[in-house]
Amino acid sequence: MIVGTEWLVEAADCDAAKLRDESLLRQLVDRVIADLGLKVIDSIWHNFPDAGGITGMAMLAESHLTCHTYPEHGTATFNLYCCRSRPEWDWESNLKPLLDARSVSITRIERGEIKIEGPRSERSILGFRPGGGRE
Amino acid sequence: MIVGTEWLVEAADCDAAKLRDESLLRQLVDRVIADLGLKVIDSIWHNFPDAGGITGMAMLAESHLTCHTYPEHGTATFNLYCCRSRPEWDWESNLKPLLDARSVSITRIERGEIKIEGPRSERSILGFRPGGGRE
Repeated sequence: MIVGTEWLVEAADCDAAKLRDESLLRQLVDRVIADLGLKVIDSIWHNFPDAGGITGMAMLAESHLTCHTYPEHGTATFNLYCCRSRPEWDWESNLKPLLDARSVSITRIERGEIKIEGPRSERSILGFRPGGGRE
Repeated sequence: MIVGTEWLVEAADCDAAKLRDESLLRQLVDRVIADLGLKVIDSIWHNFPDAGGITGMAMLAESHLTCHTYPEHGTATFNLYCCRSRPEWDWESNLKPLLDARSVSITRIERGEIKIEGPRSERSILGFRPGGGRE
């Protein structure tokens, strides 16, 4: 039984200062939510100390949206999980200017049953063990 | 740059009443956190009305742990995202008795770069489009 769709998004070679800008990241999350007509139940944000990144988590009526940034690596990752059908959000066109990301990759996974779409050239299928775990 | 590991877990054919039991789900989440030595920064829980499911989201110092249940389908899904190395948690041995799950599948994904391990027999690789989206 497929119960939802999750998009795993990786933005690489971003501007480090933008990955430490909570206001900017909140605007980005708000834009996804507004564009897709999602409903926020609650959200939590945290700034890690020193030159650390930011984590944002929004609980949605439709499931969740999370954001983690790693300024030290120029990387941001997002999860968008929707238990109801939604159009594709254009992560690449949005994240490149917003975060100065040089590359954006998206993997789409059907939850409940596992079906995966993504950048085949950047991934390897490493194996299978019933119940998961390393082979 | 790999910035973390995420486990996507699907538990199928669970007992519907257990998927509506917030206390039980909190115990389960607490067990994962304790067993793996994770640190909770904040967490939020929500019970959907009527015969709906439960969503729990824990923000971790190590990234996040989320739980969504679908009593109407007998399904629960979990995401555990750790930006630091952690041992494998035995989802199958834990979820089968706790939720009366008949099957548990785990897909492990390296975040930042996409590397996927999971139940090959249950998934299909559907394609690639730069920037993601449907082909």
